[in-house]
Amino acid sequence: MSEAARRAIEALKPILGDRLVTSEAVREHHSRDMSSNVPHMPDAVAFPKTEAEVQAIVRVCAEHRVPIVPYGAGSSMEGHTIPVHGGISVSTREMNNIVEIVAEDALAVVQPGVTRKQLNTELRALGLTFPVDPGADASLGGMASTRASGTAAVRYGTMRENVLALRVVTADGEVLKTGSRAKKSSTGYDLTRLFVGSEGTLGIITELTVRLHPVPEQVAAAVCAFDTVEGAIATVQETVQYGIPIGRVEFLDEYSIESTNMYSGMNLKVAPTLFFEFEGTPAWVEEQSQIVAEIAANNGGSGFQWSTDADERARLWQARHNHYWAVKSRRAGCEIYTSDICVPISKLAENIVAGLADIEASFLEGQIIAHAGDGNFHAGYLVDPNNEVELAEAARLADRSAERALASGGTVSGEHGIGIGKLKFMRREHGDAAVESMKRIKAALDPLGIMNPGKMGQAG
Amino acid sequence: MSEAARRAIEALKPILGDRLVTSEAVREHHSRDMSSNVPHMPDAVAFPKTEAEVQAIVRVCAEHRVPIVPYGAGSSMEGHTIPVHGGISVSTREMNNIVEIVAEDALAVVQPGVTRKQLNTELRALGLTFPVDPGADASLGGMASTRASGTAAVRYGTMRENVLALRVVTADGEVLKTGSRAKKSSTGYDLTRLFVGSEGTLGIITELTVRLHPVPEQVAAAVCAFDTVEGAIATVQETVQYGIPIGRVEFLDEYSIESTNMYSGMNLKVAPTLFFEFEGTPAWVEEQSQIVAEIAANNGGSGFQWSTDADERARLWQARHNHYWAVKSRRAGCEIYTSDICVPISKLAENIVAGLADIEASFLEGQIIAHAGDGNFHAGYLVDPNNEVELAEAARLADRSAERALASGGTVSGEHGIGIGKLKFMRREHGDAAVESMKRIKAALDPLGIMNPGKMGQAG
Repeated sequence: MSEAARRAIEALKPILGDRLVTSEAVREHHSRDMSSNVPHMPDAVAFPKTEAEVQAIVRVCAEHRVPIVPYGAGSSMEGHTIPVHGGISVSTREMNNIVEIVAEDALAVVQPGVTRKQLNTELRALGLTFPVDPGADASLGGMASTRASGTAAVRYGTMRENVLALRVVTADGEVLKTGSRAKKSSTGYDLTRLFVGSEGTLGIITELTVRLHPVPEQVAAAVCAFDTVEGAIATVQETVQYGIPIGRVEFLDEYSIESTNMYSGMNLKVAPTLFFEFEGTPAWVEEQSQIVAEIAANNGGSGFQWSTDADERARLWQARHNHYWAVKSRRAGCEIYTSDICVPISKLAENIVAGLADIEASFLEGQIIAHAGDGNFHAGYLVDPNNEVELAEAARLADRSAERALASGGTVSGEHGIGIGKLKFMRREHGDAAVESMKRIKAALDPLGIMNPGKMGQAG
Repeated sequence: MSEAARRAIEALKPILGDRLVTSEAVREHHSRDMSSNVPHMPDAVAFPKTEAEVQAIVRVCAEHRVPIVPYGAGSSMEGHTIPVHGGISVSTREMNNIVEIVAEDALAVVQPGVTRKQLNTELRALGLTFPVDPGADASLGGMASTRASGTAAVRYGTMRENVLALRVVTADGEVLKTGSRAKKSSTGYDLTRLFVGSEGTLGIITELTVRLHPVPEQVAAAVCAFDTVEGAIATVQETVQYGIPIGRVEFLDEYSIESTNMYSGMNLKVAPTLFFEFEGTPAWVEEQSQIVAEIAANNGGSGFQWSTDADERARLWQARHNHYWAVKSRRAGCEIYTSDICVPISKLAENIVAGLADIEASFLEGQIIAHAGDGNFHAGYLVDPNNEVELAEAARLADRSAERALASGGTVSGEHGIGIGKLKFMRREHGDAAVESMKRIKAALDPLGIMNPGKMGQAG
């Protein structure tokens, strides 16, 4: 531990008491995330309960020039929360109050440690939902910081569209408020969108005002197998072009279906497959299903069946949600090395096909799933996490996927963020001028470089 | 003219030839916008044809420390394009090419001088539309710069949601690219959203990639009169809460209806009124209409009629689009002094009612229309533009409206922007920390302060 960190910890002890933890176990827990990036331990982990305590932490760390690394639920996928230069991890775990739900304005005010499931449990009785669903039960602060999205983004957008306002403790310990409760505004630089996706490098989010949406009157699920990847993706593209406001539409490749059949006891045809969710009034759900069934049939889809039965729908989508575990169960002790690219939808099929060909040609097993309506897909490679050769091969495949995305006018991360893992692509994707502008913004808002250093806006 | 401006103009002449204009008439034309803000002439007006020419202009102006004021269609409402410190107005009029339309990805790449009507004319044959509709045939560069929205934002969002990517010439003459063609991304600070709404203070937009949307299979219009303002707004609120994806929903007060009847030869009941537009398949449009008719009836609405007849719809909405002229015709030689606030929808009715009471108590005539689904409304006061007492009274009423919006958790500008007119509210709405952060960002990206000086990010 550096002398500066030691002094900062001494200064923080009287403020936080036993909510400043330096035990090996807790530091180890905050040294990693769900990615394969090399862990690094913080010098201490702070568990503030209030915004004022966050301010005090930041001021002490600024005084001693000690790194601050915000930490939510630890479910990030690119090493965002790894304290690569040590310092203090600031966990939002104890800031988990739902401050206010304003049903008539369809908004909620929450502390950053509130998770999406926690919020949705609270909303159930009100007929409202917070629809951004990255899979993991992530914290809302973390989801905002990484501009998270997931399966429902095709209908409801990402955190970019669903955060109305923020409170942020800036690098100088001040409280900055962004946005308002109005649905739109044209007053000033869009600081809300600047902090959404900034991965803790510009400040610590201490409160979020998020948009809520009415729970649909009816939800129907459908599944359809296709002769080809191209046919499945053409179905998605034509559905979007038709203006169908589809709730969710997920692509699974044959390996994924095979895994799902085994793990979740399903009996799906092993073929490129789409899982659908339709939302609306009963009549509108039925009409949407019929239109999409026709589009699917024209694209080599077979066995399209839709159902409004809650159990059947839950079973199908539970199988989709268990996809990760289904794939993981294919090889004992393996980890899944996951990529995350997003391309214009006209390029989605060719990118998936090329990704599958890469897997076919590799000694690793792997599969592809897509949030197809957004052009976003994940290739996942089954690796022994202790085998350097396998990790290198997975990285090679993921890099090829990212290169193709850039060549297609897409992005190297649809929803997982930059963290450490994707830093090397920043200049390739955005160009020097954009990266230099990001660095200028970072330097302007965090001149001491203490907010999650070694990440976006500073490195890369 | 300053010596610096003289030298800059000399340096620009060989680059732009007769597309650098110093005539009184042209400078006068670029000295004002549609607001009542005091005009100020630029020293010259440049009409670049290419991005390279924009770069050259910026470099010359940077060298000589001369202000640069981007200028689109001149339809801004808060004095954004007024060169308060002189310098060079950079008109995008000659940069009006549609670069590419990618129908399969529902996107278009355009130069900044392309207007929304120009783009939509081009899109007609493709079954696609660019739906952001601020009323005026604004340039897309100007619309992005001011984060414009309008009547269709309730369904399709504002420029914030509809710009995918930008090319921007920054204050040092470099070309910066933001975003990509992917629908979503989590790579880096959201520079696209930073430039959208920055009102020319951070750079000049030289190309936009915008989202397109399918033309709905059917569109229906409806109109409904209400006993009270509260009943009309409750109808909108319940429609949104029901999850109806309404195409447009506009509120007009009694004065507006009276004016519209006279000007557009309509025979509408003089009462608080909603104009609706429903979109979708024929069956879904009918169902939406029926649901909303029922909601309206429960809230004191009467005479709800919907129609899919194109002529009838065009006549109704043309009357709405002519609202400005209808009101203007009520008093010879008057101008309309327009406010623009946006509040959470639960506060919309009380804000409108208070605004109408202010008008009732004033010696000025006035009216209120609302993009009701977004909680955005405009109070417009009929003033003699040469009468200081009347202008002061209009300003007083508009300020009261803005104060109430802030007290309601809203914003002082839903869609018109800050320009000069709303600068005084920046700290009130955003607080000191946010305004200081904006100033730091401005200083980081425009250290010489040459991009539209005296506006947002610098003054206020």
